[in-house]
Amino acid sequence: MAMVCLSDFESYAKKYLPKIAWDYFAAGADDCTTRDENILAYKRIRFRPRMLQDVSVMDIRIKILGTEISFPVGIAPTGFHQLAWPDGEKSTARAARAMNTCYIASTYSTCTLEEISAAAPGGLRWFQLYIHRNRAASQQLVQWAEALGFQALVLTADLPYTGKRRDDVRNGFRLPPHMKVKNLEQAFEYGLPPNSLDPSVTWNDIYWLRSLTRLPIVIKGILTREDAELAVRHGVQGIIVSNHGGRQLDEGPATIDALVEVVEAVRDRVEVYVDGGIRKGSDVLKALALGAKCVFIGRPALWGLAYKGEEGLQDVLRILQDEFRLSMALAG
Amino acid sequence: MAMVCLSDFESYAKKYLPKIAWDYFAAGADDCTTRDENILAYKRIRFRPRMLQDVSVMDIRIKILGTEISFPVGIAPTGFHQLAWPDGEKSTARAARAMNTCYIASTYSTCTLEEISAAAPGGLRWFQLYIHRNRAASQQLVQWAEALGFQALVLTADLPYTGKRRDDVRNGFRLPPHMKVKNLEQAFEYGLPPNSLDPSVTWNDIYWLRSLTRLPIVIKGILTREDAELAVRHGVQGIIVSNHGGRQLDEGPATIDALVEVVEAVRDRVEVYVDGGIRKGSDVLKALALGAKCVFIGRPALWGLAYKGEEGLQDVLRILQDEFRLSMALAG
Amino acid sequence: MAMVCLSDFESYAKKYLPKIAWDYFAAGADDCTTRDENILAYKRIRFRPRMLQDVSVMDIRIKILGTEISFPVGIAPTGFHQLAWPDGEKSTARAARAMNTCYIASTYSTCTLEEISAAAPGGLRWFQLYIHRNRAASQQLVQWAEALGFQALVLTADLPYTGKRRDDVRNGFRLPPHMKVKNLEQAFEYGLPPNSLDPSVTWNDIYWLRSLTRLPIVIKGILTREDAELAVRHGVQGIIVSNHGGRQLDEGPATIDALVEVVEAVRDRVEVYVDGGIRKGSDVLKALALGAKCVFIGRPALWGLAYKGEEGLQDVLRILQDEFRLSMALAG
Amino acid sequence: MAMVCLSDFESYAKKYLPKIAWDYFAAGADDCTTRDENILAYKRIRFRPRMLQDVSVMDIRIKILGTEISFPVGIAPTGFHQLAWPDGEKSTARAARAMNTCYIASTYSTCTLEEISAAAPGGLRWFQLYIHRNRAASQQLVQWAEALGFQALVLTADLPYTGKRRDDVRNGFRLPPHMKVKNLEQAFEYGLPPNSLDPSVTWNDIYWLRSLTRLPIVIKGILTREDAELAVRHGVQGIIVSNHGGRQLDEGPATIDALVEVVEAVRDRVEVYVDGGIRKGSDVLKALALGAKCVFIGRPALWGLAYKGEEGLQDVLRILQDEFRLSMALAG
Repeated sequence: MAMVCLSDFESYAKKYLPKIAWDYFAAGADDCTTRDENILAYKRIRFRPRMLQDVSVMDIRIKILGTEISFPVGIAPTGFHQLAWPDGEKSTARAARAMNTCYIASTYSTCTLEEISAAAPGGLRWFQLYIHRNRAASQQLVQWAEALGFQALVLTADLPYTGKRRDDVRNGFRLPPHMKVKNLEQAFEYGLPPNSLDPSVTWNDIYWLRSLTRLPIVIKGILTREDAELAVRHGVQGIIVSNHGGRQLDEGPATIDALVEVVEAVRDRVEVYVDGGIRKGSDVLKALALGAKCVFIGRPALWGLAYKGEEGLQDVLRILQDEFRLSMALAG
Repeated sequence: MAMVCLSDFESYAKKYLPKIAWDYFAAGADDCTTRDENILAYKRIRFRPRMLQDVSVMDIRIKILGTEISFPVGIAPTGFHQLAWPDGEKSTARAARAMNTCYIASTYSTCTLEEISAAAPGGLRWFQLYIHRNRAASQQLVQWAEALGFQALVLTADLPYTGKRRDDVRNGFRLPPHMKVKNLEQAFEYGLPPNSLDPSVTWNDIYWLRSLTRLPIVIKGILTREDAELAVRHGVQGIIVSNHGGRQLDEGPATIDALVEVVEAVRDRVEVYVDGGIRKGSDVLKALALGAKCVFIGRPALWGLAYKGEEGLQDVLRILQDEFRLSMALAG
Repeated sequence: MAMVCLSDFESYAKKYLPKIAWDYFAAGADDCTTRDENILAYKRIRFRPRMLQDVSVMDIRIKILGTEISFPVGIAPTGFHQLAWPDGEKSTARAARAMNTCYIASTYSTCTLEEISAAAPGGLRWFQLYIHRNRAASQQLVQWAEALGFQALVLTADLPYTGKRRDDVRNGFRLPPHMKVKNLEQAFEYGLPPNSLDPSVTWNDIYWLRSLTRLPIVIKGILTREDAELAVRHGVQGIIVSNHGGRQLDEGPATIDALVEVVEAVRDRVEVYVDGGIRKGSDVLKALALGAKCVFIGRPALWGLAYKGEEGLQDVLRILQDEFRLSMALAG
Repeated sequence: MAMVCLSDFESYAKKYLPKIAWDYFAAGADDCTTRDENILAYKRIRFRPRMLQDVSVMDIRIKILGTEISFPVGIAPTGFHQLAWPDGEKSTARAARAMNTCYIASTYSTCTLEEISAAAPGGLRWFQLYIHRNRAASQQLVQWAEALGFQALVLTADLPYTGKRRDDVRNGFRLPPHMKVKNLEQAFEYGLPPNSLDPSVTWNDIYWLRSLTRLPIVIKGILTREDAELAVRHGVQGIIVSNHGGRQLDEGPATIDALVEVVEAVRDRVEVYVDGGIRKGSDVLKALALGAKCVFIGRPALWGLAYKGEEGLQDVLRILQDEFRLSMALAG
């Protein structure tokens, strides 16, 4: 089977991943309306292609928070990469470095931050953070990430509680015994307790986070102009417009639709990124045309891992890169 | 099979109920357009979720007509609960009391009002009323309900004649011989005659009803601002925006759409509730955000009964409660 | 099988009619878009039902061109009723009289006008006319209809040429040898020649028609305000908004949508009727609410004939009547 | 099987063509959204049919760039006709001449321009041009076409690179060994190199092209008012609104939608044509009603060839002609 577009990787992953892993990665909250809307909303956006532009040379490199990446597609934070490929996040880190792009490692990684760093020294990596009731654990993670050379903190704002993903409930989803949430294993001596995240986090906790680190802070999960304004006022350096892949509140806006109002509210004061629903290079072009600095991919990265580990993820990124470049040329 | 969401109960009921009972509960008028629209209309409504609110403590109790219930979901009046579970409305009353919410008992119950009262003493109950050609029978029911401690009268306004439910006609629907419309058995000595409801009822009959009882009067079946205004002027204490589950006039508005104009017309002079199409906790949140004080569930309650009687109905209510609380947290 | 609604008759006809007859009756032009739109457009129209009106007594009789019929549903002109039932248009005439409504007999009847008249003396009938290249033949038909007591002429305006109905072309549709277009058999001694209709007919020919008869003239096939204005100016007594059941130009407007602008243009100067897409009593109510004086049914009448001849057609009419009355009551 | 409408030819071609050829002709870029939108957009356009016009005589001849054709449907440039029929473009040329319409021969023909000219002397033909990196080759083609009596040059503007057609990638599409891109075989001595087209072409190259030939220049692939204005200013004689059959940039506008803004921008300064999505005679009428001078068909011409060579293509054209004439009559 030729791997021609991202949905080929999706089909492969659906076929070869254990059902419980596929279901976990594929899950959306409730009726999965928002998960699917993320994709459909891109399809509703139409190009106005311009002709006879000189497209013989195109530079698709960009800078995010001051660092250059080879094209405007990074890897969004997703958990439990060992469910997709034995080497887990180590493979992800290697693929990201090979393609010269940014990888946002999740708190819920099945490799430690050290392992991730050691797997691909010199790669551009950001660290995604949940704030736990045990603030000391969160603080330790932040400082650890900074010490290991992660170049930004990505605070996830949309998960005071975990969304209701019906298939995970039906499957009684949990990690197989040989996998661990390794970053937290050390923080919580007796394993990850349920309801460990702090639902009382507010905007003021960004000041607390700021006090812990010199890293830039990116906030992930913003969907409205009001929250975008609050984020800027509280001093973040970047915003990821995200609905957590439709896994949290169902029936909110598609991210590409929310992007428009966030970009308008932010007025270039901080960088704005978007994740969710990216399936083709032309989706990347649409997001950039609507004001995103860069997009991040979640599930497609996992499908790439499931296909062939770091090599498969590179395939996914390369396809997106080629499609993005072609779309730019054809759109003029 | 895990019962994770309300549609699991629906599947169960469809599988295990006798076809004639399932068809009766599921029926909509004509092409069932309005029945299905009630659900689809909720899906068209999108949240604008806000982040980083302190959602560690949430109070979801509310008061309806002055009485507190544990969360804003009550049980709408539906007939013939013994078709779903042997104990019929007695189980419904017990489940409602256990969950500390309101149960609106139907005139067309298969238990007497006494039996319902005795099954769950102290529970909050309202009584749903049709006005019969035999006004004495209706009067007797009203006074009986008041004497038994029912706390409001719910006058159904949308059934001068019964809607055309094709499957019921095909099935020749009627109650099995061992079930009776017990409240009316006593009023009509020789059984319930066809066309027993009075199609000449008008707004002025609310004054007649008022003369019979000191109970608050709630009118059920209002779908327009004009009728909402009339209801307020005729002195009702509450309005249930309802299209009878799409079982009466097909191709009228979905209730959640009608709610908006009713709420606007009423301007807080009386309480406004809504039924029809509630399938998830987030639907409850949407209804409240659009101005409803409380929602009532019809078919889902019957599915719960069909699953495990009062225990099954409690499961249904508990799922809605959990989903509602989670939606509130995730929507900020 | 219980015949509960009109689609039951449709299923029956599809199952029991010869394929060539079913295809002919069901056919729409080209992609059948307009044929289907006629039905879909009704579904897009929503009622605003009003409650607590006295609906114990409802008068659904109306007058068309001065003659009372029992309810506002007549029988549109369709051809070749013997394809549906051996007695053909004689049965149609009997059913219409039994239900006390109007039957518009088609030029393309398989019974003569005399046979139709004799089958149901005293029934209200109009005669539908095409203008032939052989004007003498058309003139003879007009005078013949008038002499036989038909009470109006219905001039079909939308068939200068026959629309392209793909299935009829594939089937090589023609009448079986034992059926004849009897009204024209006499006019054209050697059978009905192809292209016998006159494509050069213009508005001025209404004056010619007027010169032939004292009967009121109704024009059928109007879909725009401009043509409605022209029709009034040329002195017609009525307009049937029609797209020939979607059998002529595909992708024009649905009739119920066109009705609105025609009614607005006509401003009560002549009576406006509509055909196409009526499948339920509530469709009749919608058409009347939008300004039609009466509706006419085409295919449903044929399904009724196919089911049980005049008895089946009476069933169809009675169902529509009951549904119409119920819709009126429930809509207030 | 009767060939009644164009989709009959499509079904035939899908059944009898080699899969690799069918896939190549059918292919759209990426998700094929634009390919399908071209068709769907026509369906969204509604006629306002007018009645009682004299339609007994209709003249459907038109002139394009000063030359009369028998009806406003020409043959768009498509490649590799030998994949559809052994005689390839020679059959196409014969069919076009037989129907007295215009055939735009593609650079990527499998017959030489001489063979095409010799197959149907005197036929109206235009020549479609890509600009190659090897400008000398392009120049030679232009002068050759002019010398052979082609009456216009059609510069394709939307293919700086080839769009991503997934099935072609999967199939590893290439011409079978016995077919050649004959026009280029002579220009490129050692076969057609990949990436032979020049992606640096800009509007100024129209001046270069003008310097090579006295033929009128038509630009193909314009989709916006801005580009239409640029085309007029750079002195072209005609514009073909086209998205290359949805084979280049996916998710741009349907051509019939783009036509409206192009026609408005051009204000009759040059002739505007459209291709893509024409499947019925009524589509032709819609395009003309929206301002196109003439339409061109791509895939339907190939289906006709696949059915019966020049005879099949004539069938396709004749059906479109008949349908177009009938639509005009029925629309008044």
